[in-house]
Amino acid sequence: MTIGIVGLGLIGGSIGLALRASRHKLIGCDPNPEHVRVALERGCVDTAAELSEVAKADVVFVAIPPAIVTNVLAEIEQSLGPNTVVTDCTSVKSEIVAWATEQKATWFVPGHPMAGHEKGGPQFASAWLFRNARWILTPVGKSNSNLKVLETLITEMGAKPVRISAEDHDHHVAILSHLPHVLAGQLVLNASELSHVDAAGGSWKDWTRVAGVDPELWSQILLGNRTAVSSALKEFAKELETLATQLDEGDAAAVKKFFVSAAAAKAKLPKNAGDDVTGTKKR
Amino acid sequence: MTIGIVGLGLIGGSIGLALRASRHKLIGCDPNPEHVRVALERGCVDTAAELSEVAKADVVFVAIPPAIVTNVLAEIEQSLGPNTVVTDCTSVKSEIVAWATEQKATWFVPGHPMAGHEKGGPQFASAWLFRNARWILTPVGKSNSNLKVLETLITEMGAKPVRISAEDHDHHVAILSHLPHVLAGQLVLNASELSHVDAAGGSWKDWTRVAGVDPELWSQILLGNRTAVSSALKEFAKELETLATQLDEGDAAAVKKFFVSAAAAKAKLPKNAGDDVTGTKKR
Repeated sequence: MTIGIVGLGLIGGSIGLALRASRHKLIGCDPNPEHVRVALERGCVDTAAELSEVAKADVVFVAIPPAIVTNVLAEIEQSLGPNTVVTDCTSVKSEIVAWATEQKATWFVPGHPMAGHEKGGPQFASAWLFRNARWILTPVGKSNSNLKVLETLITEMGAKPVRISAEDHDHHVAILSHLPHVLAGQLVLNASELSHVDAAGGSWKDWTRVAGVDPELWSQILLGNRTAVSSALKEFAKELETLATQLDEGDAAAVKKFFVSAAAAKAKLPKNAGDDVTGTKKR
Repeated sequence: MTIGIVGLGLIGGSIGLALRASRHKLIGCDPNPEHVRVALERGCVDTAAELSEVAKADVVFVAIPPAIVTNVLAEIEQSLGPNTVVTDCTSVKSEIVAWATEQKATWFVPGHPMAGHEKGGPQFASAWLFRNARWILTPVGKSNSNLKVLETLITEMGAKPVRISAEDHDHHVAILSHLPHVLAGQLVLNASELSHVDAAGGSWKDWTRVAGVDPELWSQILLGNRTAVSSALKEFAKELETLATQLDEGDAAAVKKFFVSAAAAKAKLPKNAGDDVTGTKKR
C-alpha cells in the first residue's frame, strides 16, 4: 500500500516510522525543507514529493496545524486518486466534521491520535509514539470500508482505534488534554514570582512538562474547541473557588471529602489511561 | 551520632535508609506495629524503642501527620537529652513556628524535605528519596549550631538544605505543591463522567499521578496552610476565568499571549526544579 503523509512534523514523522515495519511505500511532503530533510534522513518517508502526488496515495494522513487543515484538504481533493482515503490528525473535530459534511467529502475520515510530545518536529518523531494510545475516528456519513482501512493501519502502528462522535470527542479532549495544558501553563506563570522554585518536588516536573508547548499551535487548538474548553475552564474555576471557601471556613469535613472523592475517582480510572505512549519522554 | 526517628512511614523510613551509609546509630518508634516491623526488616532503623528513649538521641527527626506534631513535640520535650536537636518534616510551617516561638523551644528547628511519593508507608521508603531535593529549614530565633548539625545530616542524605522564613515557605508550597495536588484531584473528578477516559494521552497520567493521595493527610496539610492555599486557589480560578472569557470572545491574540508567557516562564525555570528525586517513581 502507498501511504501519503502531508506534514512531516512530530506526528507525521512518527506515522511514517510506525508504519515502516509493515513495508508500505511511504511518500510525504512538507513546506519546510528542513522537515523534509530530517524526515528523509530518519526514514520517516521513503520519498518526498509534491502535495498533488502525495494526494494520489492509497491512504493519506494529514498532520498539519489545525488552522490550515481545511484549505489543504480542499487542495488534496483536486488531486485525489480514485480510491484514496484521507484522514487528519487535528485535535478538535466538530468544525472539520461540519466542513466534511457540507462538502460531502466521503473520501475523508476525521481522526485524532491521542498521543504527542512537548517537543515538535521530525527529529522527535518515534515509531513508538502511538503505542497503546487511542486513535479516535469521528466518521462522517457512511464510510465503513474507509474506516476499516484506517483501523487496520492504526492497529499496525500499535494504537487502538476508537469510533466516537465529533462532539463527544471534543468534550473529552477539552477535559483530558486542553484543560490540563492550560493548568500546566498557568502553574508556571504563578510560580514565576517565586524565589525558590527549585524547592519544587518531583511531581512539579510532571505537572509542568507541557507548559512550554508551541503557542501558535495551542492557541489554534483552544480556539478551535473554544466552547468545550471555556465551559471546562469555568466549571473547573468554580470548583476551585468552592474549595477555597471551604478552606476559609475551616470546613475540615468538606476538604477531606474532596480528597476522598478524588481518590475514589482516581481508583476507578482505567489502568491504562494516559500510559506513557511516547517512548521518548525525557525524565 | 545517634539519630532518632519518630514516625516510621515513607519519610521517616527514608531518612533512616538515607543516613545508613553514614554509619549513625538509628533508633525509631511508631505507634503502628506493622510500620515498626517493616522498618526494622528493611533496615530503616537498627532498633525500635519507646518515644521517651528516641527523644534522647543526638538528633531527632519527627515525621508524623501534621495534626499531631505539636502534641508529640511537647511529649518529646519531657524526655529530651541535654543537647538533643529536634526537627520535623511537616509541609506547613507558620503554625509550628508560632508554637515553637511561644514555647521558646530552642531545641527545635522546623524543617520540610521537599520530596515525597504518592504512596505512603515504610515499604515505599528509599535511600534516594531526598536525592537532589531541597530540604527547607525555617529557624526560630538563634539556633545556628543546631542548624549546622541538621544541615550536615541533610547533606549526607543527598539533599540540599535551604533556610527561608516560615511565611515564605508556606507561600511557596501553596503554589508548588498544595495547589497542584488540588488540580490533580479536581481533574480526575471532572473526568469521572467521561466514557472514554482511556483516550487520555501522556500528560494526563503526569497530571493525575498524585490524585489519589491520602485524604486525611492532605486535608490536614491544606487546612494547616489554608490562608496561602485559599488565596492561590482563588487567584488560579480567576486566571482560568479570564482565559475562558478570552476564548468566548475568540480573542486569538490574548489566547496566544497566554501560551507565549507560559512558555517564557517555563524556559526560565531552574533546570533542576522538580527533578525526580524519589528514585522509586513508578511510571
